[in-house]
Amino acid sequence: MTTNAGLQGVVVADSRLSLVDGQEGKLYYCGYPIQTLAEHALFEEVEFLLWHNRLPNQAELDLLTKQIAAEASLPAGIISLMKALPLDANPMAVLRTVVSALAHYDADSEDNTNKDLTLQKAIRLTGQVTTATAAWERIRVGQEPIAPNPDYNLAQNFVYMLDGNVPPEAAWKAINVYLVLLCEHGMNASTFAARVVTGTISDIHSAITAGIAALKGPAHGGANTEAMNQFLEIGEVENVEPWFNTNIKSGDKRIMGIGHRVYKALDPRAAILKERARELAEQSGNLKWFQIAEKLDQLARADAYFIDRNLYANVDYYSAIVLYTLGLKTDAFTPLFAMARIGGWSAHVIEQMGGRLIRPDVNYTGPLDLEWVEIANR
Amino acid sequence: MTTNAGLQGVVVADSRLSLVDGQEGKLYYCGYPIQTLAEHALFEEVEFLLWHNRLPNQAELDLLTKQIAAEASLPAGIISLMKALPLDANPMAVLRTVVSALAHYDADSEDNTNKDLTLQKAIRLTGQVTTATAAWERIRVGQEPIAPNPDYNLAQNFVYMLDGNVPPEAAWKAINVYLVLLCEHGMNASTFAARVVTGTISDIHSAITAGIAALKGPAHGGANTEAMNQFLEIGEVENVEPWFNTNIKSGDKRIMGIGHRVYKALDPRAAILKERARELAEQSGNLKWFQIAEKLDQLARADAYFIDRNLYANVDYYSAIVLYTLGLKTDAFTPLFAMARIGGWSAHVIEQMGGRLIRPDVNYTGPLDLEWVEIANR
Repeated sequence: MTTNAGLQGVVVADSRLSLVDGQEGKLYYCGYPIQTLAEHALFEEVEFLLWHNRLPNQAELDLLTKQIAAEASLPAGIISLMKALPLDANPMAVLRTVVSALAHYDADSEDNTNKDLTLQKAIRLTGQVTTATAAWERIRVGQEPIAPNPDYNLAQNFVYMLDGNVPPEAAWKAINVYLVLLCEHGMNASTFAARVVTGTISDIHSAITAGIAALKGPAHGGANTEAMNQFLEIGEVENVEPWFNTNIKSGDKRIMGIGHRVYKALDPRAAILKERARELAEQSGNLKWFQIAEKLDQLARADAYFIDRNLYANVDYYSAIVLYTLGLKTDAFTPLFAMARIGGWSAHVIEQMGGRLIRPDVNYTGPLDLEWVEIANR
Repeated sequence: MTTNAGLQGVVVADSRLSLVDGQEGKLYYCGYPIQTLAEHALFEEVEFLLWHNRLPNQAELDLLTKQIAAEASLPAGIISLMKALPLDANPMAVLRTVVSALAHYDADSEDNTNKDLTLQKAIRLTGQVTTATAAWERIRVGQEPIAPNPDYNLAQNFVYMLDGNVPPEAAWKAINVYLVLLCEHGMNASTFAARVVTGTISDIHSAITAGIAALKGPAHGGANTEAMNQFLEIGEVENVEPWFNTNIKSGDKRIMGIGHRVYKALDPRAAILKERARELAEQSGNLKWFQIAEKLDQLARADAYFIDRNLYANVDYYSAIVLYTLGLKTDAFTPLFAMARIGGWSAHVIEQMGGRLIRPDVNYTGPLDLEWVEIANR
């Protein structure tokens, strides 16, 4: 066997959850095109779809939305833990610690074989991860965290828990679309990490913690933060072209948020988020960051290097503008990705339960049968 | 491509770290047979070997041993965090939370590209994981944790931090052999999880947290706890045969600690640990648990089901007797596995750094192009 370091082309699972058609630039969740879901669906509706393989009726959606909100509060022990952390802690590292620690306060955390109980834990984690993300944004600037409102849906609650005001419709709907678009995406690295953990018959808190650990990396979820930092570095629209010529054309050819392992066409999520970013920027009266992103995108799309390699803006690229325009700090972007992906991760965990231990092979390249040398003679 | 749910036979990396020869029942770390290392090496010596691909000289070994002990203390914030956790929290879940939280107190935690810094973090984590494991054993029974002694090696420190007494030679040497044997084992599921996380250019605290999350599962590191619980359930030597006939021969054929994905011969670590278990049991004056394990092993080895499938005692089987005889609680066994495996995980993380994003494919089994149905019509 030859070594396949990225496992590209190796099929590790059958899954009913999503189809990522990288050649055509299409994405489906349980058969529904992502455009349809982004236009119509509440995030809770998409989670129901992934978990139950069908859309909910009104009563089912209302019940799930209420349950997520009702169980979104953080145990007092978790709030105390967060308040005791260094204020400069990385928000994704904090979320990783918090999700791991939530297990200690979940009466069902050690169950690792019951799919119904695991789904209940997924429902709790959906709300708790959102609450923890908003709470850390307040705690790290010395503010008291705000408890979730049981009458709000998840996107409303997130916006509400940032400042305690009634969430503006434009803001929570933009968050909702973001959550819908980022909820699920096949066998990406964080989902795969969660499934590897589940393959040892470990529990869902362990699996989601591992998913967050993987998502944190700049070659995965961390890319949205990196993309915005790059726009901030450019700073002004008139700097885009010289920046591109110096750093990209004559540089390392790497634009954060452009290019994707699977998509060799435009990521359909990027197209939707680009329009959302434009609308939000127009409403905010500050089009600069959108224009910087669009201009850089256009330069890349006109450059032979990017054209030849089918490198298009990915989901992180324009989502960075959406989240920044909504007032989020750049290092809080990746926790928002985690808030969304909890739906996909948990659906994959449940799909993996009862499956095989995931243990690939390795090609040993070292020597054999070396003889021991006493330490005095080394 | 057909689906390969366990990735068996798929080679995901070239590695100089270890060879697991499952057909012959052999194991090498960087060329040295495991028997040689178990007989001669200090755990710190094995970590040096894995990290630097050669054995240390005396000065290098002394330096590393001192550094691990010197940096094994837990930050005050971590001690407070542990004391605030529910006392019945699962020790592996606690270790997962603690390793994630240690990142918040490590000035280098956000570096994810520098191999030298990552090695320094691995050295710190080696000591901290051992201290945290011992600390939780005390905290959960209402005792103050004991700080590491800078003059002890890691095995000595672990035994010392359990009760504060000078560590008896028989005890720390047994722990040292256990740590050496469990330190590294190819592309097992927890190591693979750590490498998947590193593939996204995430940091080593994220990778080790994911490793712990995977190791926790009873199909992986959790098996040592399960094996001991099974011996405790059997309870007496005369119960072994009826228990085997009822639960295994006429039951589900599954003995915890017998059988392994890779070994189709006797696991060489099991052979070493069996003799250590026998010696420790004899010294302790209580041979019962060893005899129960040995008797059950013999019944399995004489049974056609186990013979035909090459199911032998694995490393978890007799290590359970070693750890129980040393006085450890059964649910503390898996954290000891983690204490050892930190060496292998960290070496794999460093080997993976700069490598590809690990992202396999998935076979989508659902429908396509479903049309949206308004919620009132569902």
